[in-house]
Amino acid sequence: MTNKKILNGEKVIVKIGSRNIGGTNPPIFIAGPCSVESKEQIHEAAFALKEIGVDVLRGGVFKPRTSPYAFQGLGIQGLEYLKEAGEATGLPIVTELMDEGHMEIVGEYADIIQIGSRNMFNYSLLKAIGGLKQPILLKRGMCATIEEWMMAAEYIALHGNKNIILCERGIRSYDTYTRNTLDLAAVPIMQKETGLPIIVDPSHGTGIKELIEPMSKAALACGADGLMIEVHPDPSCALSDGHQSLNFEEYRKIREQL
Amino acid sequence: MTNKKILNGEKVIVKIGSRNIGGTNPPIFIAGPCSVESKEQIHEAAFALKEIGVDVLRGGVFKPRTSPYAFQGLGIQGLEYLKEAGEATGLPIVTELMDEGHMEIVGEYADIIQIGSRNMFNYSLLKAIGGLKQPILLKRGMCATIEEWMMAAEYIALHGNKNIILCERGIRSYDTYTRNTLDLAAVPIMQKETGLPIIVDPSHGTGIKELIEPMSKAALACGADGLMIEVHPDPSCALSDGHQSLNFEEYRKIREQL
Amino acid sequence: MTNKKILNGEKVIVKIGSRNIGGTNPPIFIAGPCSVESKEQIHEAAFALKEIGVDVLRGGVFKPRTSPYAFQGLGIQGLEYLKEAGEATGLPIVTELMDEGHMEIVGEYADIIQIGSRNMFNYSLLKAIGGLKQPILLKRGMCATIEEWMMAAEYIALHGNKNIILCERGIRSYDTYTRNTLDLAAVPIMQKETGLPIIVDPSHGTGIKELIEPMSKAALACGADGLMIEVHPDPSCALSDGHQSLNFEEYRKIREQL
Amino acid sequence: MTNKKILNGEKVIVKIGSRNIGGTNPPIFIAGPCSVESKEQIHEAAFALKEIGVDVLRGGVFKPRTSPYAFQGLGIQGLEYLKEAGEATGLPIVTELMDEGHMEIVGEYADIIQIGSRNMFNYSLLKAIGGLKQPILLKRGMCATIEEWMMAAEYIALHGNKNIILCERGIRSYDTYTRNTLDLAAVPIMQKETGLPIIVDPSHGTGIKELIEPMSKAALACGADGLMIEVHPDPSCALSDGHQSLNFEEYRKIREQL
Repeated sequence: MTNKKILNGEKVIVKIGSRNIGGTNPPIFIAGPCSVESKEQIHEAAFALKEIGVDVLRGGVFKPRTSPYAFQGLGIQGLEYLKEAGEATGLPIVTELMDEGHMEIVGEYADIIQIGSRNMFNYSLLKAIGGLKQPILLKRGMCATIEEWMMAAEYIALHGNKNIILCERGIRSYDTYTRNTLDLAAVPIMQKETGLPIIVDPSHGTGIKELIEPMSKAALACGADGLMIEVHPDPSCALSDGHQSLNFEEYRKIREQL
Repeated sequence: MTNKKILNGEKVIVKIGSRNIGGTNPPIFIAGPCSVESKEQIHEAAFALKEIGVDVLRGGVFKPRTSPYAFQGLGIQGLEYLKEAGEATGLPIVTELMDEGHMEIVGEYADIIQIGSRNMFNYSLLKAIGGLKQPILLKRGMCATIEEWMMAAEYIALHGNKNIILCERGIRSYDTYTRNTLDLAAVPIMQKETGLPIIVDPSHGTGIKELIEPMSKAALACGADGLMIEVHPDPSCALSDGHQSLNFEEYRKIREQL
Repeated sequence: MTNKKILNGEKVIVKIGSRNIGGTNPPIFIAGPCSVESKEQIHEAAFALKEIGVDVLRGGVFKPRTSPYAFQGLGIQGLEYLKEAGEATGLPIVTELMDEGHMEIVGEYADIIQIGSRNMFNYSLLKAIGGLKQPILLKRGMCATIEEWMMAAEYIALHGNKNIILCERGIRSYDTYTRNTLDLAAVPIMQKETGLPIIVDPSHGTGIKELIEPMSKAALACGADGLMIEVHPDPSCALSDGHQSLNFEEYRKIREQL
Repeated sequence: MTNKKILNGEKVIVKIGSRNIGGTNPPIFIAGPCSVESKEQIHEAAFALKEIGVDVLRGGVFKPRTSPYAFQGLGIQGLEYLKEAGEATGLPIVTELMDEGHMEIVGEYADIIQIGSRNMFNYSLLKAIGGLKQPILLKRGMCATIEEWMMAAEYIALHGNKNIILCERGIRSYDTYTRNTLDLAAVPIMQKETGLPIIVDPSHGTGIKELIEPMSKAALACGADGLMIEVHPDPSCALSDGHQSLNFEEYRKIREQL
């Protein structure tokens, strides 16, 4: 039933700063805290991660949280902190866009714009961001089929932007041991079907710190074009997702093995 | 883990025109085509359904479709047709809102505003519609847990609007015989947990015409506050969801038995 | 892909004692404890349930438990207690068979032989019980598709026994609020596809006492040929499934409403 | 809730012929056709695979098939062909046991005894095989949780046999692109939780030939103790699972890269 006119399997190479992602290019490493929590926190993370060797700094400022009473992110203030941290270290930054109302400012600040799992089916937003020129990091919806995910990317491409990096972050299954079921078969499938680069997020994909290393190795072994991992200066104090975040030393050890 | 400060189980009665929904009030019947396709089609549907005895006319004008190449709805033109059909018959109308950009006009035209399955996790939209005064029809996300669905309603309530009608429309499971797995246990659960009225959509919940009658009976038997069913003047020519739509005669027979 | 040569949709009426099940016959009520725990417990249950108006007494004696360290049932001793309780009250009895080694003795004692969810895919056992003359109560596997369930019944029929009563008991989904997701659409589907009677088990299907009444009503409303409900003299002391068992008074109230 | 008294995480090393599996030992390679179809077919496979470098020859002789009308395997005749092929090449053999009735003969012929996905919940069979001395290959049930799978292994161990090799073969999810969703996170989880070796079956885990290579690499990268892959002399003529089987040349290429 698929009808992909644009993302039809021909290789798409996405440029991030001086790096190329996709095809035979080496994998890209994205890391940072789940949420930007303060100027100090994101600057500390940026410098530590730069030194360890990451390519892109991540940090959420608009946070889609299950409960309306949970921390919702620092918003535009957080975006400024993130931008400054990126500029201070020379790292490109990626952050999530949740609605069109913030598209202009996020489009101005961010080097890569993330569409999170909860918005993969938000077709209005997908159409709108087709008008941006930055690369889009399109996470898989938590119950999106391969077909639906491909077509979500096609929405963006059809509206003008082929610079899409896919991100497998686990799908929902009946099992509760892990937070999600990381579907690594999606890596070679999506590469072949769409031609787009695809990275893997083992932090959300498992929700368990100890699984990040083996799943990162597995992701690269089956051809992933990069990894996005949550790293926080002090995971035990994180305002969101602390249980699945690595500290700098833990991340450094994994990074060295990859 | 739930922390519902507003929708805490105390009964919420929602008014639709002269009707009250929820609590011990009789069930409400919503019917109409998946999409508004033309002025003639929606007028024909409105008059036929009025005569059969529906309480609210449904019709989609902004359609969230898996493929960007599929029919995307008539948009504002369709909204006008739907409004006229509602006024001509005296039927309140319900239609889906997909983005904030259309909130003003949809808020002006529609008597009930639907948030579809694909946007249940779109927290920006949930916050925004909290500012509307109309009742909101909040469909369950296709893989939303009971907890997540409750909290999505809480987002709307916290931002100002407690007039929420929930709608169970089936969840995603491993089985492929039906389009979705209709989770009727959600009816008494959500009533007790939130206090809100809840209706059932057996059209999307099964995707099979022949199952609409037995599942409608089951839904009312376990306490559903209403039913939303897709009815089209000529299902075989429908631009979307024709295979699960009833024609007028089929709907009339079911309506008479309920 | 289905190829049902025997259970092809033609109505099958199953006889249990003086009762007929299936087609237009009234629903059958099966109740009893999850496990036979003692002679006193099952006799007390049998007399109380007989008085309330059940048609068949259930009780497990071979228990398939997730942990090998959990109570595994009283075995043949339990079977004798169950048989005596059935004879003392005149109630037919149903119990689960887990392996061929017990087929002869269970076949001698039980009026209906249950194949539980965990053994629906145990094709050796399905073939073997085809040689029994008693009615078989075939529960749906916890992740069995409609197709697989139909074919499991076909295995039994092909090996000689068409007296099959299906039992929908909930399937596994991503949601954790209920123990299983009760798939009531399976009721009309399986009746039409196989012609067999089908009953519903809301106790396992929800795992929540308070949901048994609404789900029982829903099951009968969509055409179920009966209900199987866990009832225990003192649920708080039950050796298995106490949290989802009703006591006699709770069951009586539900029974009166159905 | 887990209560593992025996398989508590302490490393278990399983011996297969002259090989040790588990812990820091190199991965083991198991290959062969889904079904033993003839003497010629299994001998041809055995010699070709021996030459390519497999460690164990697989072949099904009792086949659990969804339809009772599908090929059910050659039975004991097939077991003899398999045994002869193993002896002719010096390869240990693994085959599935479906019921206790065949336990003696399968126990006599096979070097490793497989419990398939459909029987992981067949506790009677698990208890019985605890009495065998051979290594048991315990596949994950198609909807088994991590907890349930651990406890299935514990059943075998408690009844006398700790020589268990686990096998991840994909779980059932809502997605239909692949036959199953290969849950590679189960590899490090089960190793840590039980101490047992675990291999991966990418043939059933994906159902797609082209995914066997990347998923095999991923499995070994995250620490799998081996791989089981379906290889058939002529997949297009296979009596079962031909679409997911490799021919010898395809397998040789993958084997060389691992």
